Amino acid sequence: MLEHRIRHIGLQSRVMTADEAQTWIRDGMTLGVSGFTKSGDAKAVLQALANRVEESGERLSIDVYSGASLGDTDGILSAHHLIRRRLPYQSDGLMREAINAGELEYVDQHLSHTAELLRGGSLGEIDLAIIEATAITQDGGIIPTTSVGNSPIFVQRAKHVIVEINMNIPEAFEGLHDIYLPLDRPQRLPIPIRSVRDRIGSMSIPCDPEKIVAIVPSTLSDTPSSIVPADADTLRMAGYILDFLEHEVRYGRLPKQLAPLQSGVGSVSNAVLSGLVNSAFEHLEIYTEVMQDAVFELFDAGKVSFASASSLTLSEHKARRVTNDIARYRDRMILRPQEISNHPEVVRRLGVIAMNTALEADIYGNVNSTHVFGTHMMNGIGGSGDFARNAALTVFVTKSVAKGGRVSSIVPFVTHVDHTEHDVDVLVTERGLADLRGLSPRQRARTIISTLAHPDYRDALLDYFERAQRRGGQTPHLLEEALSWHNRFRETGDMRKTKNLARVM
Amino acid sequence: MLEHRIRHIGLQSRVMTADEAQTWIRDGMTLGVSGFTKSGDAKAVLQALANRVEESGERLSIDVYSGASLGDTDGILSAHHLIRRRLPYQSDGLMREAINAGELEYVDQHLSHTAELLRGGSLGEIDLAIIEATAITQDGGIIPTTSVGNSPIFVQRAKHVIVEINMNIPEAFEGLHDIYLPLDRPQRLPIPIRSVRDRIGSMSIPCDPEKIVAIVPSTLSDTPSSIVPADADTLRMAGYILDFLEHEVRYGRLPKQLAPLQSGVGSVSNAVLSGLVNSAFEHLEIYTEVMQDAVFELFDAGKVSFASASSLTLSEHKARRVTNDIARYRDRMILRPQEISNHPEVVRRLGVIAMNTALEADIYGNVNSTHVFGTHMMNGIGGSGDFARNAALTVFVTKSVAKGGRVSSIVPFVTHVDHTEHDVDVLVTERGLADLRGLSPRQRARTIISTLAHPDYRDALLDYFERAQRRGGQTPHLLEEALSWHNRFRETGDMRKTKNLARVM
Repeated sequence: MLEHRIRHIGLQSRVMTADEAQTWIRDGMTLGVSGFTKSGDAKAVLQALANRVEESGERLSIDVYSGASLGDTDGILSAHHLIRRRLPYQSDGLMREAINAGELEYVDQHLSHTAELLRGGSLGEIDLAIIEATAITQDGGIIPTTSVGNSPIFVQRAKHVIVEINMNIPEAFEGLHDIYLPLDRPQRLPIPIRSVRDRIGSMSIPCDPEKIVAIVPSTLSDTPSSIVPADADTLRMAGYILDFLEHEVRYGRLPKQLAPLQSGVGSVSNAVLSGLVNSAFEHLEIYTEVMQDAVFELFDAGKVSFASASSLTLSEHKARRVTNDIARYRDRMILRPQEISNHPEVVRRLGVIAMNTALEADIYGNVNSTHVFGTHMMNGIGGSGDFARNAALTVFVTKSVAKGGRVSSIVPFVTHVDHTEHDVDVLVTERGLADLRGLSPRQRARTIISTLAHPDYRDALLDYFERAQRRGGQTPHLLEEALSWHNRFRETGDMRKTKNLARVM
Repeated sequence: MLEHRIRHIGLQSRVMTADEAQTWIRDGMTLGVSGFTKSGDAKAVLQALANRVEESGERLSIDVYSGASLGDTDGILSAHHLIRRRLPYQSDGLMREAINAGELEYVDQHLSHTAELLRGGSLGEIDLAIIEATAITQDGGIIPTTSVGNSPIFVQRAKHVIVEINMNIPEAFEGLHDIYLPLDRPQRLPIPIRSVRDRIGSMSIPCDPEKIVAIVPSTLSDTPSSIVPADADTLRMAGYILDFLEHEVRYGRLPKQLAPLQSGVGSVSNAVLSGLVNSAFEHLEIYTEVMQDAVFELFDAGKVSFASASSLTLSEHKARRVTNDIARYRDRMILRPQEISNHPEVVRRLGVIAMNTALEADIYGNVNSTHVFGTHMMNGIGGSGDFARNAALTVFVTKSVAKGGRVSSIVPFVTHVDHTEHDVDVLVTERGLADLRGLSPRQRARTIISTLAHPDYRDALLDYFERAQRRGGQTPHLLEEALSWHNRFRETGDMRKTKNLARVM
């Protein structure tokens, strides 16, 4: 079975255990590892490394570059204090704690940027790439598993490569991937994607077989996605977006089959896509970074004709079904490198409709999607900026309140900006949908406050805006009060309460 | 002479005065007018409109869409309260006052976005385009003058078109422009620019002659650019950037001829380019939105082999020389529509080095380039976001202090974010240059404070950062103090002084 999957004869002698392979990892190294949103990540060797330091008590400090979040491995590496620098994205609870405690340097990057920064030389060299694979071709090409991520650029630039052959991934995954690496400048060419379904590269990641120093058979599964089931608010938001899309079709601003859809990771995005199952829309296309469960519901309902992404991030149940049935879907989907799935060139050319999640938004439509109260990292910006800036239509969604109503997600001034008002066309809460296109900041504020804010906070927001307006300006603010809501929460645990309770909003 | 410039025989009968042509403008209309950074703007008809309302006392309210800033016309229109909505950019003192007084709706947009938003239908219809031209071709094509801007999309979408033939622009301007309009989706193709010098379109803006309702001869000149001469600080910043570029070449991260350069409008950008005259660099290329004086110094010094932009924005002296001598430069330069000069696809493909100006930056490298104290609009974001996000190397410059030292340009928390830390590679003040690539926010803060801040503020910034760090987080802040520096200035006129002078930093 394993020999089947190592078609380059000379490489068969490099098979070893994860324990043996992990000895390639030395203190101070920079690793480029496969994995995008918990899928297709290199698992066996990194976990063996954690076991090594667990047993030996050795202190090791490495830089780990990936596609996006790894599965449980991010937490395991953090727990063992193995990471010095981590980029470009993570979403693990333990690692989040370590980041916010200042224990490691986390460099939060646009997901389309990392490959370019590597080419540009500002992120140093990749000492070792560790890539999960379905198989290795006769000429050493690496066929990825459930994600592509940054693996092609890591393999291209790494001094050495370790391949983890995941025996649980059916060989039918071959043919799913489309590997295209932009040429170095000035030879760089236009990316020849004109439609979601265009194949422009090879089915495996080109690799000089000499660089492959170890091949490790593995049977570890991807960490399943844990999407919170849609609640009433989530479904309401999904409903507003579907109504809005229908409205845009009616007014001739979108074609009947819409435009290629991108949706971020999360329950609202998943719910919007699920909502399309029962809509009148047909022949839909997806151009996104992550395919969640809903994409396969849409395939099965005959609503989606083609989907392109960089990874499959599925619940345990859906993953089992899709993985074993991959041949059924293979001619309707492509997994691409993340610099292509998220490339501004392609996103703008195709006119993508981008839907992503905000942590909070301010009355002018600036969006914070990463930092809790402006300081503590949640996950990272991921691909949201790649899509939001370049999409034909950019939607952000958030519930109007959090923490049982004690925090308003619509605030006078966001504590951190990931997406500026220039990049936010439509904002949605369970209260409604605000179409901000073509509006000036003052017009945006009136619309956002009246349409999106929770009633508990609406008057206070309006009061802030009206008093701010008296001082004039394109974007009126009272800087001495702008962050007071967040301070009030820090002091009292509730944005609505002042410290001495003398003034309740 | 004029007949020479109207080569479509049927159109010669549509010649009229500006006073006659302005009667096409009615209350409530949306105008799309030529003009980019004060150059090639439609001047005669709009000024005749101002005269009309001046004399008649009529009240008129119109939406004016342009390429970027108009020259004196923006001020004239504002003074006559003629504008209801203005986009995507302006830089006029009178209009700035009107915007900040809330008298008109100013929609500040990425300059590459406006054409797409028009295609998407969210900015309504263009009732009338008014385009300054060198000549009209036999088939009705409009040859622009000193800028291209958004004129092609305005002409394509307008119901009617008025052409102002500027008799002071030599006919030798023909051949300077390269007009390419992306096709509507899903027919959209890759933009076939692979090098700064690639010509991909036509020399004139295609126009159905039936749409041209008036042709107005004019002799009004562009409003000259008024660049503040470089001072010692400006030259020091330019020097740091040149040293840095040489350093990057030495370490193999940039080729000897660098990469296509973009530089924003302003004296620092102009000084950086001027500095290249005496550098060792050769065969340089420019891919930018505005060619300022320095580009022609570089041409004359044999340093630049080709330049592409959307406009020529020159001082009075330089404009006279270049305009009359245009044939000398014409085969070494191209003027493109702004959606092409600023297109993320092309900017990323070419690997542009982008240099733009910040109003203020925070200790984490977030940049405010538009809003004075977070509320009052200076000019607008212009093309800085198009370039900063997609460039291979993004540099922002600002002096470390303003207002005679009473304002620090390096602050704990910027009052408005136009460019997030993800998009800012290098920050420069007259104190030094901070290379932020690959650094986490805490590492960025230490570098920015120690390298860039003015000594009067350095200790206070460090104190803020250290106290903030005790609360933890990826991006430590003390939200209750984050904007206190700006508040202090508002109360005392000096960021260094507290109100009661009890505590002097």
